Amino acid sequence: MKKEIENRIAAILPPSADLYTQACQRLAAQARPAGSLGLLETVSARLAAIAGTLDVRLNHKVIITCAGDHGVVEEGVSLYPQAVTPQMVMNIVEGGASINVLARHAGASVKVADLGVNFDFDPALPMFHKKVAKGTANFCRMPAMSRDQAEQSIMAGIEIVDELVSEGPVDILGTGDMGIGNTTPSSAIIAVFSGLPVQRVTGRGTGLDDKALANKIRVIENALSLHRPDPKDPIGVLSKVGGFEIGGLAGLVLGAAMAGIPVVCDGLIATAGALIACALAPAAKPYLFASHRSVEVGHAFMHDWLGIEPLLDLQFRLGEGTGAALAMELMDASTRALWEIRSFSDAAVETACR
Amino acid sequence: MKKEIENRIAAILPPSADLYTQACQRLAAQARPAGSLGLLETVSARLAAIAGTLDVRLNHKVIITCAGDHGVVEEGVSLYPQAVTPQMVMNIVEGGASINVLARHAGASVKVADLGVNFDFDPALPMFHKKVAKGTANFCRMPAMSRDQAEQSIMAGIEIVDELVSEGPVDILGTGDMGIGNTTPSSAIIAVFSGLPVQRVTGRGTGLDDKALANKIRVIENALSLHRPDPKDPIGVLSKVGGFEIGGLAGLVLGAAMAGIPVVCDGLIATAGALIACALAPAAKPYLFASHRSVEVGHAFMHDWLGIEPLLDLQFRLGEGTGAALAMELMDASTRALWEIRSFSDAAVETACR
Repeated sequence: MKKEIENRIAAILPPSADLYTQACQRLAAQARPAGSLGLLETVSARLAAIAGTLDVRLNHKVIITCAGDHGVVEEGVSLYPQAVTPQMVMNIVEGGASINVLARHAGASVKVADLGVNFDFDPALPMFHKKVAKGTANFCRMPAMSRDQAEQSIMAGIEIVDELVSEGPVDILGTGDMGIGNTTPSSAIIAVFSGLPVQRVTGRGTGLDDKALANKIRVIENALSLHRPDPKDPIGVLSKVGGFEIGGLAGLVLGAAMAGIPVVCDGLIATAGALIACALAPAAKPYLFASHRSVEVGHAFMHDWLGIEPLLDLQFRLGEGTGAALAMELMDASTRALWEIRSFSDAAVETACR
Repeated sequence: MKKEIENRIAAILPPSADLYTQACQRLAAQARPAGSLGLLETVSARLAAIAGTLDVRLNHKVIITCAGDHGVVEEGVSLYPQAVTPQMVMNIVEGGASINVLARHAGASVKVADLGVNFDFDPALPMFHKKVAKGTANFCRMPAMSRDQAEQSIMAGIEIVDELVSEGPVDILGTGDMGIGNTTPSSAIIAVFSGLPVQRVTGRGTGLDDKALANKIRVIENALSLHRPDPKDPIGVLSKVGGFEIGGLAGLVLGAAMAGIPVVCDGLIATAGALIACALAPAAKPYLFASHRSVEVGHAFMHDWLGIEPLLDLQFRLGEGTGAALAMELMDASTRALWEIRSFSDAAVETACR
């Protein structure tokens, strides 16, 4: 692994165990049944441990949508033509896509990062220009990218966080994806890490029928037989069956952990990136939150592997960061619950009688 | 049934089927995979049908927390003493309770309604003063209330909506509860309507241990054998094993449906009220939304009976309207998604190739 990534990973600090305990004590003293706010309690305590204070404020919310293209679309694994990737990138830049709408609702800003779209964007466009190459190779025939490119895509994600932080405060980072064909590498990645049969972790993406789904499964199986990716070598996995935006998404998680910023990942593809990140750097895990459980069957196995529980299950299968945007609102609510709900004694309410 | 309730129910109008269709068409034309926003799509189309426009705005959000006491607490079915009901009512009135915090986050106002708390509140307090009696009777020995009182509690809920609407616009109404012991009548109600064994629909409330849970189940079983409530007579069910706040919660759903306002119910108790309402008036169902799935085991059976799918599953078991508050934010997001996401043609994005 590149020395620079190694050095940066080594610098990740754990969140404050003391603040976590303090948060749990405050939650337990609130005038309501113990544990009655369920997942929001865990989330608020984790956020307090990361922020180093009980008075967490998620005022500055940022969502980064990483985009890339995939050579494997030649195999007919997607319903949409590759041209849709740059078209949707432009739609996000112009503010009309799903993620823009839900991010506005959540009070988050959105920026696209081009990690590997097969299109030449105007360098003046307000986006992160981090193209590693114009799309990956078809991983049915050769590795999706070189090892060097894999590391480059991860470094690009780390650099994006560096740049964001240098521009102003970031209280929470959301990660999302755009890339025609990218559920295929994502399912391949979870197949490698879980050791489960490909058909158990592969879904219909944007809407494949039974025949096309069977083809997608066969394509992934062939690629895994050809490259035999080793889960103990996450960069190897990324280079053999991954994608440039997936590398970028991994880098965002690493960058956030390095900067001490909580990071909430979106659907199958963003979580594939998070998985690569946490396989490289288990120290990043305490900074990672799961926004939602996607319709994509492989997603739940990723959450199991990461040991995180998603906040939402709205039957989404959109990507872009849409689930992350909605989850940010719940995370925001959790911080207010931690801080503002009065205790039994402050509210003069009797506690349980046994 | 009281003639007045009958007349009001008869006046409930169905939402616009035409607007529902228009909303589905708009959603299908948006530049994203068909159906990819899952539950938010259904919610937004239903809200458009209720509002009679595609440009739905949920600017005025109101949550009503109905409170009441329960004679059945004599049987040891709750962990907390009855005195907690008025103490928590005061906590809500003063703005320090969980519902106040989450409602502020959602941009909703909160008002408590006293339907039957065993306490004399100062009539000057800013709450709905609708006390039917100071707590129900212990339904292990006699009906919880008279038939007349059951109807009175429902009318009180309807009147609350009348009063709210006369004061200003209400775009969405949330319903929540406060009442020590009130998971017991709620589980009794779902047992009656579902026909399921009491133990399958009865949970630990605020945190009962195994022994106390077994006692709670026995208490409900005894009451059902004693009164034999008939699910075809919802007011009879309410009077025999219900609660005053549950009647009020039913009335809120009916009142909202009459006024053409969407209503989102919170946890087990609020949903028990919604169930009584929809059993009385199936025409109210299209106005009803389920906010979340509670930890309480009976809740899912209520949603099944009502045919509605909850938006959240955060392992809440708090009540007060907390789940409804968070769900309102998602419903709000759904209306923006319907209105603001650009179509394939507006965004110049190619559609699926097969």
